[in-house]
Amino acid sequence: MALVVQKFGGTSVGNVERIRNVAKRALAAQARGDQIVLVVSAMSGETNRLLKLTREISARPDEREQDVVIATGEQVTVGLVALAIQDLGGKSRSFLGHQVRITTDSSFSKARIRSIDGEQVFAALARGEIAVVAGFQGIDAEGSVTTLGRGGSDTTAVAVAAALKATSCEIYTDVDGVYTADPNICKAARKLDRISYEEMLELASLGAKVLQIRSVEFAMKYAVPLWVKSSFTDDPGTLVCAEDAAMEDVVVSGIAHDLNEARVAVRQVPDRPGVARRVFGALAAANVVVDMIVQNVSESGHTDLTFTVGRGDLARAREVIQSLVAEIGNPRVEADAGIAKVSIVGVGMRNHAGVAAKMFDVLAEEGINILMISTSEIRVSCVVLEKYAELAVRALHTAFGLDAKGAV
Amino acid sequence: MALVVQKFGGTSVGNVERIRNVAKRALAAQARGDQIVLVVSAMSGETNRLLKLTREISARPDEREQDVVIATGEQVTVGLVALAIQDLGGKSRSFLGHQVRITTDSSFSKARIRSIDGEQVFAALARGEIAVVAGFQGIDAEGSVTTLGRGGSDTTAVAVAAALKATSCEIYTDVDGVYTADPNICKAARKLDRISYEEMLELASLGAKVLQIRSVEFAMKYAVPLWVKSSFTDDPGTLVCAEDAAMEDVVVSGIAHDLNEARVAVRQVPDRPGVARRVFGALAAANVVVDMIVQNVSESGHTDLTFTVGRGDLARAREVIQSLVAEIGNPRVEADAGIAKVSIVGVGMRNHAGVAAKMFDVLAEEGINILMISTSEIRVSCVVLEKYAELAVRALHTAFGLDAKGAV
Repeated sequence: MALVVQKFGGTSVGNVERIRNVAKRALAAQARGDQIVLVVSAMSGETNRLLKLTREISARPDEREQDVVIATGEQVTVGLVALAIQDLGGKSRSFLGHQVRITTDSSFSKARIRSIDGEQVFAALARGEIAVVAGFQGIDAEGSVTTLGRGGSDTTAVAVAAALKATSCEIYTDVDGVYTADPNICKAARKLDRISYEEMLELASLGAKVLQIRSVEFAMKYAVPLWVKSSFTDDPGTLVCAEDAAMEDVVVSGIAHDLNEARVAVRQVPDRPGVARRVFGALAAANVVVDMIVQNVSESGHTDLTFTVGRGDLARAREVIQSLVAEIGNPRVEADAGIAKVSIVGVGMRNHAGVAAKMFDVLAEEGINILMISTSEIRVSCVVLEKYAELAVRALHTAFGLDAKGAV
Repeated sequence: MALVVQKFGGTSVGNVERIRNVAKRALAAQARGDQIVLVVSAMSGETNRLLKLTREISARPDEREQDVVIATGEQVTVGLVALAIQDLGGKSRSFLGHQVRITTDSSFSKARIRSIDGEQVFAALARGEIAVVAGFQGIDAEGSVTTLGRGGSDTTAVAVAAALKATSCEIYTDVDGVYTADPNICKAARKLDRISYEEMLELASLGAKVLQIRSVEFAMKYAVPLWVKSSFTDDPGTLVCAEDAAMEDVVVSGIAHDLNEARVAVRQVPDRPGVARRVFGALAAANVVVDMIVQNVSESGHTDLTFTVGRGDLARAREVIQSLVAEIGNPRVEADAGIAKVSIVGVGMRNHAGVAAKMFDVLAEEGINILMISTSEIRVSCVVLEKYAELAVRALHTAFGLDAKGAV
C-alpha cells in the first residue's frame, strides 16, 4: 500500500467547487488502495487579503503577529477540505501546524522546518481517514505560530512526505508540469516529462514559480519522488527525480527568469578587509537573503560592491546599508528594482564547454547589456534590465534548441 | 497596580479604524498605570462568513472541522490588534487558545472552559506588553481546536480575568450598558447603572444579547466585577456585581425577550415512568440544550410533553425525537419556531408577592395568549407567539414602572 502526499495550491482550492474537486480526487486515489495525506494552501487571494489587512494596520508589521494573521488562510482550507471529504462519504480529519507538531525555527515569515511528528497523522491513516494538513505553517519552540514564506506549502508537503516516508509527493497546481521556459512569455516552451532535482533546484531558485526551492531541497535530501501535476487535468505531469545518464545528453534543460530581484550598489567603499563581512553580516542579521554579489576591481583604494536581494527586502536592505554608511567610509548607495535575472540551466553543462560564452553571444546579438553574471556547475545567470527579460528568454530558448520537439 | 481585562466584540474590531481605536483605548488605560489584557472577537461578519463557507461544503458540517474554520476569525483579530498597538508605539503580543492553554472539554461548537494557564500572559505583562488573547477558542485534551459558542469571547474574557485574578473585567460592546429592555423595541428602556450577577444571569439566559450567560456565571462564581461599556463612547456603562440591599427595593429590574427559541410538542406519550428521562437523556446526548419543559396533566393514560430548544437545534431535536418514536408509544411530534419568550427579572421579586399574577394580567389585557410558563426565584417567563413579543415587552415595561425615571 502506497502512502501518497498530495499538495493542492491556492488556485486548486480557490472556491467551494474546487475544494470538492480536491476531495473527489483524494477519495479516488484512496479508493485505488493508497493512503492519502493532503497538504493544502490558503484559498487563492486569501493570503494577500490578510497581508493587506496587516499592512493597513502597520506599514512594517511585526512578523510574529503577521504570521498569526496569515496562517489562518490554511487553517480555513484544511477544515473545509476535511468537511468536503466527509460530505462525499469519506473519513477525514484536519491537522494544524501545532497539532502535527511541525516545529520550525523562529524566523517569522520565512521559518525553516526542524522536525515533524507524524504520530497523529499515522493514527488517522490507520483509522482509514484522509489526513488534511495545513501547509505553510508551523510552531516554534515557544509555541508561536510561524509561516514558511511564499510557496511554503510545497515545503510542508515534501517535509511531511519525508517524515512519513511516503512513496511519493504530488504537487498539484494550475500548470500541468515544469516547462522549458515560462509559457506566458515564450510561446515555444515545452513541458518536460522528467527533470533532475538539481536542475529543478536551479529553476526554482531562479524564479520559475512552479515549486518552492526548499521543497526541492527537501525532496532531493530525502530522495522523495516529486510530481508536478495539474489539479484540473489528468496529464501525468513532470517527475522531479534523481539525475540519470539520459539527462546529461541535454546541455540546457530550461530557461528561467526572475523579475523579483532588485540590485543594490554600494559605490566607493574602501577596499580593505572586513567591509564585505560587515555589510553581508548586517544583512543576514536583518534576515535579508542576498542572491548575487559582485565586487569590481579596486581603483585608487576604493571599490564598488553590488548585490541583489528580493524586491520585498529592498527597503530593509537599504536601511541596513544606510545604518553602516559612516562605518564603511561613506559610500554612495544606489538601489534599482528595474532588473531581471535570466538563466540557463542544465546538468549537461558539466560536460559541454562554451555554454556560457554562447549565452553571452546570444544576448549581445539582441543588443542586451549584461549587468551582472553568476554561474554554478549547471547554471549561468545574467542580470539585465527588466525590459529585456522576455526578449532574452525567447532568444535563449531558440538558441539552445529548446523550441524543437525532442526527448528530454 | 490594577490588572484589567478588556473584551472587545466584533463590532468594536469591525474594521482597521476601529481596531486602531481599541489599541488607543488599551494604551490609554495602560498609561493610567494598569496592566491590560485584551480579549477580542472576530471582526463583525467574519464568523458568519466562515460558517457560510462550511455550510456551502456540507449541509451538516462536522463540528470539529467547523471549529477549525471559525476559530480563525479571532486569530486574525488578535494579530491585527497586537500590530495596531505596536504601530502606536506600544508593546504587545497575541495569544491563541493553544498558547494560553485555554483547555476545554470536547463539545465542539459549544465547549466549556476547564482551565487556563496564565503563565505566558503574566510574563508578557511583566515585560510591559499588552497581552491580546483570542476569544471564543480553546483546545481540548487532544489538542483539537474548540469554540465556546456564540458570544464565547465574553466567557473567555471573564475566565481569563478569573484565572489572572484581575481587578475587573470590562466588556466593550456596541451598546453602552445593560438596559431595562431592548431599546430597539422599547423606546422607554433605560440604562441601568448597576445590576446583580443573578439578575444579569437571568437576563443573559433569556436573550438579552449584551453578555453571554456563561461569562456571567463565571463572573459570579469568581466574584469578578464585570463592566458593560461602549467601545464608542466614554459612558461609564453598567456594573454587574454582587447583590446589595438597595437592589432589592426594585421588584422588576428588566424585561427580557428571546426570539431564538423553538417549541417541540410530543403529543400523546404514554404517561409512564422513564419516558421523560428517555427523551431528555437522548437530547442531552445529542448536545441539544433544552430550556423550558412543560408536561400537562395525564388524560386517559397519555400526556403531552412540550419543551423549548434553541432554534439552531430544532432540526436535531426533531431527529432525536423521531428516532425514539417507536420506543415511546408513537406520539405525534409538532415543532414550532414561531414563538418568543418574554420574561420579567428582579431580585426584589423574592420579597414581593403577586408579581407573576400581575404579569399574566398585563398579558391578558393585551389579548396575548400564554403558551408556556416557567419561573425562578427572581424571574417569570412566558412563551407567547412571536408576533406578540414586542407588544408584551412594552406593556410589561410600563406596567412594572420601568418607563419612569428613577434610581435602580
